[in-house]
Amino acid sequence: MVFEGSEKIIELGVQPGSPSLRRLPYAFWQTLVTSAGAEIISCVKNDACDAYILSESSLFVWDGRIRMLTCGATQLSNALVLFIERLGAESIAYATYQRKNEYLLQPQIRSFDQDLAYITQTIPGKGYRIGHLDSHHHYLFTANGEAHSGKSLATAKPLATIELLMYHLKGPLAEYFRSPQQTTEGIRDALQLSSMFIDFEFDDHLFSPCGYSLNGIKGDRYFTLHITPQEQSSYCSFETNLTEKDLPAEVLEHFLVKLQPERWDLICVDRPLLVAKPRDNTSINTCLITTDGGYDVNFKHVDQQDELLFTQVI
Amino acid sequence: MVFEGSEKIIELGVQPGSPSLRRLPYAFWQTLVTSAGAEIISCVKNDACDAYILSESSLFVWDGRIRMLTCGATQLSNALVLFIERLGAESIAYATYQRKNEYLLQPQIRSFDQDLAYITQTIPGKGYRIGHLDSHHHYLFTANGEAHSGKSLATAKPLATIELLMYHLKGPLAEYFRSPQQTTEGIRDALQLSSMFIDFEFDDHLFSPCGYSLNGIKGDRYFTLHITPQEQSSYCSFETNLTEKDLPAEVLEHFLVKLQPERWDLICVDRPLLVAKPRDNTSINTCLITTDGGYDVNFKHVDQQDELLFTQVI
Repeated sequence: MVFEGSEKIIELGVQPGSPSLRRLPYAFWQTLVTSAGAEIISCVKNDACDAYILSESSLFVWDGRIRMLTCGATQLSNALVLFIERLGAESIAYATYQRKNEYLLQPQIRSFDQDLAYITQTIPGKGYRIGHLDSHHHYLFTANGEAHSGKSLATAKPLATIELLMYHLKGPLAEYFRSPQQTTEGIRDALQLSSMFIDFEFDDHLFSPCGYSLNGIKGDRYFTLHITPQEQSSYCSFETNLTEKDLPAEVLEHFLVKLQPERWDLICVDRPLLVAKPRDNTSINTCLITTDGGYDVNFKHVDQQDELLFTQVI
Repeated sequence: MVFEGSEKIIELGVQPGSPSLRRLPYAFWQTLVTSAGAEIISCVKNDACDAYILSESSLFVWDGRIRMLTCGATQLSNALVLFIERLGAESIAYATYQRKNEYLLQPQIRSFDQDLAYITQTIPGKGYRIGHLDSHHHYLFTANGEAHSGKSLATAKPLATIELLMYHLKGPLAEYFRSPQQTTEGIRDALQLSSMFIDFEFDDHLFSPCGYSLNGIKGDRYFTLHITPQEQSSYCSFETNLTEKDLPAEVLEHFLVKLQPERWDLICVDRPLLVAKPRDNTSINTCLITTDGGYDVNFKHVDQQDELLFTQVI
């Protein structure tokens, strides 16, 4: 009944001057995606980015980096290690791996600790936990390639991203996501994506019986949206590398108003936390870490407190 | 680094008129405890109750019922099933099984869903979740033997218990529990147990390198206290079947003041929630379920909200 919508995320950058990753053959990406336990469903490309919709989330490929998200019980750490092995550790500028504490760990093949042990056989790095053990928390692994190359990597830092992770969606739109009437057009319209992300090329997919994934690209900017509407564990993630100028706090507010999540997490890498409108009856935990790679990770968990009955007959 | 202090708990009652469980041989209890992955460490007895300290928590045996707690990655559902198989399903008046959402599920052999599938092969019953999926929650299985016997079981209900489960202890006492200077006498004194639980017979044990378990009995009344002081996941549980008259809210308050937990859960079976002194800056979730067995389970989760930095380098 509980579906694990939360994505694991990897991002890898290659050393400046490396050949473009976009010239790697399709078979390479198929192998990479398969190694994590997912499949490629579709792809759109522009001058700067190739964006793949996967059976379980997304893969973005730029000339100098990749970012891949997979949900459920996929093993994204396999893809991280495979990528490094295929390209050679000496060509890696940085690698990151992020993973939320799951509702259900049993379906997961490895724990984060086991991921860490597995990954660090290939690339040394550091693990962090952001957020409280008793509440939503995320695990983070970061590695930078300086140990291999000795070069300055100021130009090869992870993307400055915003992730808005919304849990337990309510209201008419949440109902719509669970209904057989939903269409990709209907979801785009309801979320007003075309008017919010002008000139973006969209690629989206509706899963059976439910679930929705969308990639949007415009030059080297991307955003991606994934919805797992299952009632016990409904979830929507939005993430982007749009700058603050192009992504005002109103956009996050828009999603919060439309999707009415009971709880949400905001993770901002190398940029400040965007402030959403204060709400009544919420509690907020925040934290900031400065990684060894020299960039910051800001985290905020917002919880709409209530005195409601939280009983679930299993 | 994270030790799973939270106990799983089973309670089983036999049909009125059954032979006293206390006449079962020691070997029976050894087998039962071993089946869960624990060992018997010591035992005290009085006219009404046999109380065993286990390598991982406690076992109490009365004439007509048992209650057993084990922590870590023990498989307490094995003991529940073994008990029913050895005594025969027709002699069982009721069975309950309780389990908190673990911090780390990987070490656990079975998920609660798997426990449920395993247990219900032997005794039909119902599963519940109390508390929110995103926060502390507890799983509960309840079965009553009416399906087997057709008898009225008004006299064979689970104990009316209070569980106070305290997470992330702070202050000098929490430090003391982690220090090599600690002694069983020192812990009893610091917690003023002798003056709070008058005429109780105590049996306690200090584990190496740290950890403390105590059983106290007086007639058919028991209380038990378990401390796992490991810094990343310190925890203390207190539970008892003392009535409200003998266990005023001040006793719970006493533990909260002494142990300064950042978060705590209160689970009251077939009795109202005791009210602890309100605290600043807390959020509270409560829920009440009335089980098929005709008794209530009250649950309260209290969280001391703060804006602190929650980062952990792994």
